[in-house]
Amino acid sequence: MQTDTQTDESQPYRAYFRCFRGCHGEYSLYDVIYTCPTCGGLLEVVHDMDALQHKPAEEWRTLIDSRVGTTVWPYGSGVWGMREWVAPDLRDENVVSMYEGNTNLYWAERLGKQIGLSDLWIKLCGNSHTGSFKDLGMTVLVSVVKQMMADGSPVRAVACASTGDTSAALAAYAACAGIPAIIFLPQGKISAAQLVQPVANGAHVLALDTDFDGCMRIVRAVTQDNAIYLANSMNSIRVEGQKTVAIEIVRQFDWEVPDWIVIPVGNLGNISALYKGLKLLMELGITNKMPRLVAAQADKANPFYRSYLKDFAEAEFVTAQPTLATAIQIGAPVSYEKAVQAIRESNGVVEAVSEHELANAAALADLTGMYTCPHTGVALAALFKLVERGEITRDERVVVISTAHGLKFTGFKTGYHEGSLSEVESEYANPPVYLPADAAVVRETIERKLDMHRGMLHV
Amino acid sequence: MQTDTQTDESQPYRAYFRCFRGCHGEYSLYDVIYTCPTCGGLLEVVHDMDALQHKPAEEWRTLIDSRVGTTVWPYGSGVWGMREWVAPDLRDENVVSMYEGNTNLYWAERLGKQIGLSDLWIKLCGNSHTGSFKDLGMTVLVSVVKQMMADGSPVRAVACASTGDTSAALAAYAACAGIPAIIFLPQGKISAAQLVQPVANGAHVLALDTDFDGCMRIVRAVTQDNAIYLANSMNSIRVEGQKTVAIEIVRQFDWEVPDWIVIPVGNLGNISALYKGLKLLMELGITNKMPRLVAAQADKANPFYRSYLKDFAEAEFVTAQPTLATAIQIGAPVSYEKAVQAIRESNGVVEAVSEHELANAAALADLTGMYTCPHTGVALAALFKLVERGEITRDERVVVISTAHGLKFTGFKTGYHEGSLSEVESEYANPPVYLPADAAVVRETIERKLDMHRGMLHV
Repeated sequence: MQTDTQTDESQPYRAYFRCFRGCHGEYSLYDVIYTCPTCGGLLEVVHDMDALQHKPAEEWRTLIDSRVGTTVWPYGSGVWGMREWVAPDLRDENVVSMYEGNTNLYWAERLGKQIGLSDLWIKLCGNSHTGSFKDLGMTVLVSVVKQMMADGSPVRAVACASTGDTSAALAAYAACAGIPAIIFLPQGKISAAQLVQPVANGAHVLALDTDFDGCMRIVRAVTQDNAIYLANSMNSIRVEGQKTVAIEIVRQFDWEVPDWIVIPVGNLGNISALYKGLKLLMELGITNKMPRLVAAQADKANPFYRSYLKDFAEAEFVTAQPTLATAIQIGAPVSYEKAVQAIRESNGVVEAVSEHELANAAALADLTGMYTCPHTGVALAALFKLVERGEITRDERVVVISTAHGLKFTGFKTGYHEGSLSEVESEYANPPVYLPADAAVVRETIERKLDMHRGMLHV
Repeated sequence: MQTDTQTDESQPYRAYFRCFRGCHGEYSLYDVIYTCPTCGGLLEVVHDMDALQHKPAEEWRTLIDSRVGTTVWPYGSGVWGMREWVAPDLRDENVVSMYEGNTNLYWAERLGKQIGLSDLWIKLCGNSHTGSFKDLGMTVLVSVVKQMMADGSPVRAVACASTGDTSAALAAYAACAGIPAIIFLPQGKISAAQLVQPVANGAHVLALDTDFDGCMRIVRAVTQDNAIYLANSMNSIRVEGQKTVAIEIVRQFDWEVPDWIVIPVGNLGNISALYKGLKLLMELGITNKMPRLVAAQADKANPFYRSYLKDFAEAEFVTAQPTLATAIQIGAPVSYEKAVQAIRESNGVVEAVSEHELANAAALADLTGMYTCPHTGVALAALFKLVERGEITRDERVVVISTAHGLKFTGFKTGYHEGSLSEVESEYANPPVYLPADAAVVRETIERKLDMHRGMLHV
């Protein structure tokens, strides 16, 4: 008897929410639930590993490989090409995908040489629909909501409180699906430019006359009837999409695990997701090694680094100071416990860098053809430190996660090259040169520049 | 005897420059030559069709399909996955690729319904390394230059005169290859924000105290010794990369040809490239039909449209007026003759649209999850006109080429939603709503917004 419309292929698998701390209880991915009803802690998605392990590793590899770039919906998406590991009972017609994932794993040959690494790679997650890695999680969240609504849930809209990549991704995926999106914000902290993506994508942007805490109070009040699904960082469904970036990196090395993965962290959901993806590969017998994970923070917002220095004896929360790396300006990270597990079980490292270091690291990378956002600058600057002190050695394979496209940070780029960023000395500033319309002068200038360039090429 | 290092697979094929108008003479792709020495007209790359036709169509399809998403260098790139059709004697070690191509062919289901089309697709070329379709051509040009330099050419640098996508792509690919890039510009027409991509990628940006014509005079003077290779729009090598987008679209429909392809045009190189790619597929027996091509112009810069209205009796050149679609603000298009062929032989159409039309078309598309640049707005507005007058009918399959990422046009987006764009009435403006921190008021506002939204969903 045919009781549902899901594809035959995904039928043997199932996934559900469970408390990350281990409290009793299982909850459907299609329930409106964000935290453990018992302890208030984070949930996590648990997959039926017995069912998944029934398929041999070699078959999984072949299956996932076969879907890359396919024209068969929805497998051309890097996320939905691994749907059995993400949200197995999500039906085809509810997938809201914009071909996320399968981004360039860029061999940073020139940058690597300059810092003494022969095998340095940058995962360019920002070359995506909304310009950041948030697309990977949002395709899952909005698809789940679409299925909830199709199956009669009271949910009528999705919402979040963010001025950045999260609201951009939520608004775009919701618009694609025709689901209303609501962005809650405290007044006075928003500019049109910051919000232009969700505004353009038709989100209902509500600026409330209060601060962030006041916002959250209102949000809780107006969502009590479960009509609005919160896409905030408490929500663990997005991790299922975000974890695919780790799996994708391994696949792009023909299923070989790199030695290190470096990622900029704020709320700590992304490093938890990396670990979850890598762990899954080991549990399925596809890999037999965990890369060492590096969580990179800005000095201005370094609670996780402080906890790390004390061996995670307790969670350190700080008041985050303004930093160029705006998306990780977070003092009380939501996914702290999950991230501690990720660092501990991967023999990982936490590092922190100054404004000066992150801006110059980004600029140095740009000189080799990238277009680096400040958060990627944080990850690169942390990498430089680990290489300098010999913790990462020259033949190790290192992947740096670039979380967003530099096009989202024009002010950061122009400020750097104009030399106007606070606490930053722009070591690689490259302003335009003004010349008279005189062929001889122009020719001489070019000669001088090309001679300089030749010198640079040898580093 | 091994006389070169090219791969076995590409050995049977060759390509060379020839005069587009048919003058006698063949020139190597690795010569520093931009126009026909006899007539001064454009060159075009000619492939040895006998050799290419020797392989059956089915084998070509299988070969190209097999390379999509592969980890074997450089075939994971959408351009280099068809290298035999692009630059067959380009050696692996000289390929400068950033995984260009294979962009999302997005099924615009919601937008299509709103305008009465059931099979509307948007090719999102801006979801790429530098954020525009120019990457497709630049990977070829910079790779060719790298091979020239490896083989002892006097070329030492690449150059162009552009404030936009071309200089961004040239600078990024040159930086990746470690080849110096020079951007020539007239002073007073440049802002840091316009130029921030080439500045960040380390290009030598020279602002000359003259106008554009004066710039070109100086450029010609300083490039007489062939030490600087010009990546300007006269250069026909870029077309070989750009044409792959047409082939890729057909491949993404499992080698089925759509009925229409709509593209915004200025210098007319891109529509020439589309036609060239589609023609190649027919010559190889892979397809048996040419889609109808639509060239979309802004009213403010519509020379090709004017020529079209006179059945191309002669080239009409105009003084282009300022338009929101800055990249196609061109009055004397370089690739006029090639584009006339493309329109004539595809039974094509040329259409032109106002500032008001292009801005509102872009905004309407954004409401369905895209993030549309003004040039894509031009193409969409032209499409709306063709549908309205019944030239495109409801069941035809239509592809619109989106040439750049909206993230490059934050000013356009914010201006639109603030209602401050000249000659534009913002029909879909969606500014933030300011509310007191009162749960009842917020709840009521959300209710009203969601009711509105429900109404919208039915169109």
